[in-house]
Amino acid sequence: MRKRLSKDEYVAGVLEGNRMILSRAITLIESQLDTDKALAREVLETLLPHTGNSVRLGITGVPGVGKSTFIETFGKHLTNQGKKIAVLAIDPSSQISKGSILGDKTRMEELSRDPLAYIRPSPAGISLGGVTHKTRETMLLCEAAGFEVIIIETVGVGQSETFVHGMVDFFLLLMLAGAGDELQGIKKGIMEMADLVAITKADSGNELQARQAKVSYENALHLFPASGSGWYPKVLTCSAVTQTGIDDIWKTILAHRELLQQNGYFFINRKQQNLAWMHDFIKQTLEERFYQNPQIQQELSSVESAVTEGKKLPIKAALELLRLFEKSIHS
Amino acid sequence: MRKRLSKDEYVAGVLEGNRMILSRAITLIESQLDTDKALAREVLETLLPHTGNSVRLGITGVPGVGKSTFIETFGKHLTNQGKKIAVLAIDPSSQISKGSILGDKTRMEELSRDPLAYIRPSPAGISLGGVTHKTRETMLLCEAAGFEVIIIETVGVGQSETFVHGMVDFFLLLMLAGAGDELQGIKKGIMEMADLVAITKADSGNELQARQAKVSYENALHLFPASGSGWYPKVLTCSAVTQTGIDDIWKTILAHRELLQQNGYFFINRKQQNLAWMHDFIKQTLEERFYQNPQIQQELSSVESAVTEGKKLPIKAALELLRLFEKSIHS
Repeated sequence: MRKRLSKDEYVAGVLEGNRMILSRAITLIESQLDTDKALAREVLETLLPHTGNSVRLGITGVPGVGKSTFIETFGKHLTNQGKKIAVLAIDPSSQISKGSILGDKTRMEELSRDPLAYIRPSPAGISLGGVTHKTRETMLLCEAAGFEVIIIETVGVGQSETFVHGMVDFFLLLMLAGAGDELQGIKKGIMEMADLVAITKADSGNELQARQAKVSYENALHLFPASGSGWYPKVLTCSAVTQTGIDDIWKTILAHRELLQQNGYFFINRKQQNLAWMHDFIKQTLEERFYQNPQIQQELSSVESAVTEGKKLPIKAALELLRLFEKSIHS
Repeated sequence: MRKRLSKDEYVAGVLEGNRMILSRAITLIESQLDTDKALAREVLETLLPHTGNSVRLGITGVPGVGKSTFIETFGKHLTNQGKKIAVLAIDPSSQISKGSILGDKTRMEELSRDPLAYIRPSPAGISLGGVTHKTRETMLLCEAAGFEVIIIETVGVGQSETFVHGMVDFFLLLMLAGAGDELQGIKKGIMEMADLVAITKADSGNELQARQAKVSYENALHLFPASGSGWYPKVLTCSAVTQTGIDDIWKTILAHRELLQQNGYFFINRKQQNLAWMHDFIKQTLEERFYQNPQIQQELSSVESAVTEGKKLPIKAALELLRLFEKSIHS
């Protein structure tokens, strides 16, 4: 086993941008051990004044949209400008496959070898809610390590997009120009969160279809209520193969940032996100403490039986368990 | 103020099917007073053996689909067969308008005068989660009062459908035959919950379009994974004006019931629903107790300020509040 670092060693290493120590700090954050958790929080709290300076960018799209190829091309575009970028994934499927390191390294081959880029897959074996907290903390560590753009990607089919939307400044939705089914593949709620919709694979004779899709999406986005930030969602076409439109996407992200920093919404949004994070964590912890309480674990199955057999009113059963829980923490 | 009834008076009145006492029992359930809540639970617990015998039916559809007209026609169809029916609403909009009694009575005029029908609007002024628990309890009261079909309706645009799906035996989705946008108006997730999709307003020259929509929906429903119950979602067309298809819908509901009672899934589903209800209530109560704790209420705003100003890590702030909460219930 590797020697455990001290708080100061983690802090100094991360602030220097030492990737090996950054990786070990992220592993510390992902640890389920209580001592590791406490140390991780100390490290983060110390690093807090050095966080918040990156462009926090969420990218989502259904499988097949060319998300990895896009992130690779987009990422290289930024590293070519000398920007340090980090790519983090919130991937519920990795909960099943127990980690997707191989997948991430393989699918973004060039970017993963780029010294200015840092790619970190989802932590495996914990709940989606847990992954979300770890990803937020990892984002803070990457910021403290000097990364200027943090890309958080999801698969665009589940609940995780809402989580990502709650931790980024800008939400980019990748879509394919399809045959009449432009709005079908993705949940409507995800579309509403997008600051920019980019139609991918606008190349190889697909350009006209992509432009038509652009018009459809622009019309569709007009149906959604304005977000209050003063920003109206844009639609662009792009191609990772011909590199078309990639720079426009980056410029749109910067324009959005400039507008929202000017009108103050950028800071309001970040503050609200921090608050929401705290409250999410409170709710999650309250539930964990209840269900992991030894007395609850001992009684739960018999109470559950009484409820499923219709002998006990679910709400009354719940109240009895809650009383037991409160008694057990009193004693 | 009206004299408060005793537990035995509520129980006896509900079991007799006395509507005035049923209404007062529902009001008791909706009360936010602790003494009322405790009495309500006693009443429900006593009535529990008399519940569970109704057809629990969820009906949803976007505004404009003709939901009220459908429920009125469908409800009359059942009361004409001598069946006692209750219509309950989970209506998030009533949280804003503070009750929709007038609306409900107006929009189902004939049904609301039918002695075999009982219509009760959403309780106002409480959260959607709260409404859900109250609606479940109201459903149990109505069952104890001898209602044979309980219709729980929602508006088909929000989160409430998932709640309704979690408390009914059969989920009916009403859809309009539209011009090419058959799948657009409603969230995809709602479609997946449907046991039956009924295309409304198949009349006045709209019949062909309705039949075409039927085929589209049948194709779409095939894309969803099977539910495990052995039931494959059906699509029917109907008209509240010409009364076409109304009886087919009822027969489909009964066929579904027969199949699922034979293969046992009906009972498995009800048991799982009871369990989920208990756990939902536990989570909701844990949060309520935390946020209503006087010490938390006193400290919350200063901790929130520290978090929004970036002076405190959200997770650390959460843990400090949780520690304060636990200390306050110890003492």
